[in-house]
Amino acid sequence: MKRLLWIALLSCATALAQSSDDAKPASTNVFGAAYPRVHPDLSVSFQLKAPEARKVQVRLGKDYEMTRAEDGTWSATVPPQVPGFHYYYLVVDGVEVNDPGSESFYGVGRESSGIEIPEKGVDFYQIKDVPHGEIRQFRYYSTVTGSWRRAFVYTPPDYDTNPTARYPILLLQHGGGEDERGWVVQGRTDLILDNLIAEKKAVPMIVVIDNSYAQKPGETPAPVTMPPGALKTVHITVSPTFGEVVVKDMLPALDRRYRTLPDRDHRAVAGLSMGAAFAMQVGLSHMDTFSYYGSFSGTVMRDLDAKNSYGGVFNHAEAFNKQCHLLFIAAGTAEQSRLDAANHARAELDKAGIKYIAYDSPGTDHEWLTWRRDLREFAQRLFK
Amino acid sequence: MKRLLWIALLSCATALAQSSDDAKPASTNVFGAAYPRVHPDLSVSFQLKAPEARKVQVRLGKDYEMTRAEDGTWSATVPPQVPGFHYYYLVVDGVEVNDPGSESFYGVGRESSGIEIPEKGVDFYQIKDVPHGEIRQFRYYSTVTGSWRRAFVYTPPDYDTNPTARYPILLLQHGGGEDERGWVVQGRTDLILDNLIAEKKAVPMIVVIDNSYAQKPGETPAPVTMPPGALKTVHITVSPTFGEVVVKDMLPALDRRYRTLPDRDHRAVAGLSMGAAFAMQVGLSHMDTFSYYGSFSGTVMRDLDAKNSYGGVFNHAEAFNKQCHLLFIAAGTAEQSRLDAANHARAELDKAGIKYIAYDSPGTDHEWLTWRRDLREFAQRLFK
Repeated sequence: MKRLLWIALLSCATALAQSSDDAKPASTNVFGAAYPRVHPDLSVSFQLKAPEARKVQVRLGKDYEMTRAEDGTWSATVPPQVPGFHYYYLVVDGVEVNDPGSESFYGVGRESSGIEIPEKGVDFYQIKDVPHGEIRQFRYYSTVTGSWRRAFVYTPPDYDTNPTARYPILLLQHGGGEDERGWVVQGRTDLILDNLIAEKKAVPMIVVIDNSYAQKPGETPAPVTMPPGALKTVHITVSPTFGEVVVKDMLPALDRRYRTLPDRDHRAVAGLSMGAAFAMQVGLSHMDTFSYYGSFSGTVMRDLDAKNSYGGVFNHAEAFNKQCHLLFIAAGTAEQSRLDAANHARAELDKAGIKYIAYDSPGTDHEWLTWRRDLREFAQRLFK
Repeated sequence: MKRLLWIALLSCATALAQSSDDAKPASTNVFGAAYPRVHPDLSVSFQLKAPEARKVQVRLGKDYEMTRAEDGTWSATVPPQVPGFHYYYLVVDGVEVNDPGSESFYGVGRESSGIEIPEKGVDFYQIKDVPHGEIRQFRYYSTVTGSWRRAFVYTPPDYDTNPTARYPILLLQHGGGEDERGWVVQGRTDLILDNLIAEKKAVPMIVVIDNSYAQKPGETPAPVTMPPGALKTVHITVSPTFGEVVVKDMLPALDRRYRTLPDRDHRAVAGLSMGAAFAMQVGLSHMDTFSYYGSFSGTVMRDLDAKNSYGGVFNHAEAFNKQCHLLFIAAGTAEQSRLDAANHARAELDKAGIKYIAYDSPGTDHEWLTWRRDLREFAQRLFK
């Protein structure tokens, strides 16, 4: 490993020496990496040393050709990007690879490069001089899967200084191809909650973030069904096993380990994309367990049928509205199919007389800035 | 991102369908990835789809050629590997890239692929049915760097159930090109401590794992010096700024936030490679703050001079031996230069009459299995 180490560190040193414009290394870069660099107009420059490659591209939403310099360094500057977090890749002779200058982020079923495009004047997901809570790694044994599992738990800033206080909980789930790291790393859950709590916009709460993929012994993962050409309409199957894990194993273990308020009035469930399907399915079939429900960018909303969905729970509007403290349906305005799905669901609920809160994230796609905003909006409405 | 997601998940499904031998997907693979696969004899098969590439290799210690099948899938099976954790890459037309089948691990200055080769009959770093502590993300403000910093804190299993107990602390540092994630992810600190504590081989302790890279405002990172051809003898400069951060900011913040025992008798410091240099430099120049010192694979040991090193602290053997509860010097037997360095230091200390404990990890190189074993050995000797 010695040789590799020195080469890697030297590459950083070289790259550092080259920075002489107004652009800044992305905050998502590894320590010391000068590229990718974000320009003041939010265009982004990429660079890769690849003397033997015939073709190198940046894949960021679409593909951009990189140009080879004589020394074998390939470069490209791509047009101004939408603020927020975007997964991206470099494509070397047709192979999608990670940029060695970027941290990597587990999403879309693999470790991917990612770039944070700054959002001017917006700091609700930035670190501030406020009291900070903790993200804790919480290991628990699942009798359903017969295995130890890992979740992350956010405890609010006063959790340890207020040793007799008990807290409500929010179960917050990732999307398809992501796992429990998504809301911690890309989602910045702790910073969003720390900031909201400091401003007294949200009440101190525990957030638990688990992995939605779960199999019983011998069970194979639910197959992914993808009718050709139907990318925008298919669903990712929500594991019913994970719902069992939550109710039978995770929540009881959480209630034993942390100072929770273990009743429905103090439990919320939400998720993004596949996690939205989970939140609705598990939340609405366990209304004795949860009383706040959030769907962020749920494709599943497309199929909402006020008469038949979720065991017909929406047929009894008065009872439902009394039991449900919050039904929150969100999408980004730049993710048309999810926005359509959300609007379909809202219309169905209107017809049925079901109360809900709608939130549309301006200008954002099926990406993490949409979900950070959703969390900010949802968390402020919980447990009040 | 929709298209990418489906492609990624489909690739997994395809790969899963191909597994029909005795080999098993590495435990370091991303969820659902069938490759790399570890065979019973510890040889490893790799695979990458790269129809347009001209040459693909596996870089795992050395380079192995991969062979192209008609459909553009490249494959290689490499000889049996030493147990433990190894960083590796695939090389596509000369570019070192990550394997999409692997999790990525921050080491050698970048996110890298890694593979865990199982160690038969050894489970001290595996998850077991014992009480588990937590890894917590600990944010603190540094007046020295003028910035918020992140460390990880291991709290032992009884930390929350024993709310008046106070605990000793071990400060445990990473090597050059790594950061505070190393001891958490590759090092498996929590599992090693959980298992030792369950067996009553180690006392419950808090472990704090920080990032050794630190700069004051306006300060540029210490340059990496690499005399050509001298890979085995150079040092990575330990930031003196980080030592200041530890003493002025981190330890006081830790003592405020956690139930520590804030005196020298209950503080240990250790690190690997560059972290060993840090542990010796900061530890031995702050003997009022720390009383247990551990060097794991420290190249710095090569320069130990009992007369002059560390302000001449070894010149007063009787006083030193009384003050120092443990000086622990470790290396792997397969990392000859660090073993030589350790043996040089031990000989110097012998001459000076300084007591120390030596540990040589059998058959392991400058890699994480060496350091997991070092932690197991070191932690058992602390605070007793």
